[in-house]
Amino acid sequence: MAHTLEDTIALLSRTPAAFDALLHDLPEIWTSRNEGADTWSAFDVIGHLLHGERTDWMPRVKVILQHGESRTFDLFDRLGQVRETQGKSLGQLLHEFSRLRAENLGELRALHLEPEDLQRRGRHPALGVVTLSQLLATWAAHDLTHLHQISRVMAHQYWQAVGPWSAYLGVLKCDGHSSP
Amino acid sequence: MAHTLEDTIALLSRTPAAFDALLHDLPEIWTSRNEGADTWSAFDVIGHLLHGERTDWMPRVKVILQHGESRTFDLFDRLGQVRETQGKSLGQLLHEFSRLRAENLGELRALHLEPEDLQRRGRHPALGVVTLSQLLATWAAHDLTHLHQISRVMAHQYWQAVGPWSAYLGVLKCDGHSSP
Repeated sequence: MAHTLEDTIALLSRTPAAFDALLHDLPEIWTSRNEGADTWSAFDVIGHLLHGERTDWMPRVKVILQHGESRTFDLFDRLGQVRETQGKSLGQLLHEFSRLRAENLGELRALHLEPEDLQRRGRHPALGVVTLSQLLATWAAHDLTHLHQISRVMAHQYWQAVGPWSAYLGVLKCDGHSSP
Repeated sequence: MAHTLEDTIALLSRTPAAFDALLHDLPEIWTSRNEGADTWSAFDVIGHLLHGERTDWMPRVKVILQHGESRTFDLFDRLGQVRETQGKSLGQLLHEFSRLRAENLGELRALHLEPEDLQRRGRHPALGVVTLSQLLATWAAHDLTHLHQISRVMAHQYWQAVGPWSAYLGVLKCDGHSSP
């Protein structure tokens, strides 16, 4: 099942503004709280997205284009956002995420990838051979998995406050959690 | 577990802009497709939110304040968005949702509810006795359950495109679906 670069870029270009509209200046009950020990708050998730923007997606695109399957991707440091977020406000992280995303999409567009380029292959340290097409589709789906996560983490803060309505709210029953 | 009216209004006032930033002018692959028979697309969900804004939340607030437990809420017509959305574009629905939400929050603020008002009770046709506090918290959590749903419906469109990365994307494993 193919995806088009246009559809992928259209989504990637909108998600930073969506996160910003949702989270900017929101009270801390929504942005700083998590789902319990060893889980992430909305703040942590934005730090993770920012770190990925710096170290994951476009660097891997370049590894595929330059080295193909011969060079395994660097491991993504899932705790990199701890360094990324130290001493910063959520507003700063959101702004930085938007800026880096715009830069990265500018670089991606400048590559003028053709459909046949999307079939080029790289090597993931755990998943093995993957295509550039799969990497780019995952970049977009990764935004969505974290929007999904943030909406769940935020709803969790109200699971008692909603009283009996919790029975109707699917978000309170979600266990579709991403890998750590 | 209490919630504060300020926190609830802060969220309710931001979600329309978040949906708009995410969905406005996005290609139809993201907005018109659903998860299969008898499921909703992002377009359908925004229609549902718009319909709720018109017929559900503030009307129920008023029933509680005027009639307490003596008058059961009207049933919410979960298919009301079919009428609501006919002949309209997603852009129109998003705009109308933002406008109605702002109007409703204006009305809510004008009630100058005090903490003791939040303990007033009403009667839900299926759930029985509920409080105004629970109704207002549910209004906010309901936005989040549908943001959660939309992110899942959108990610579903790429479940094949991401290839082996599907193993890492929690959103593709979510079964935290709301009641129909």
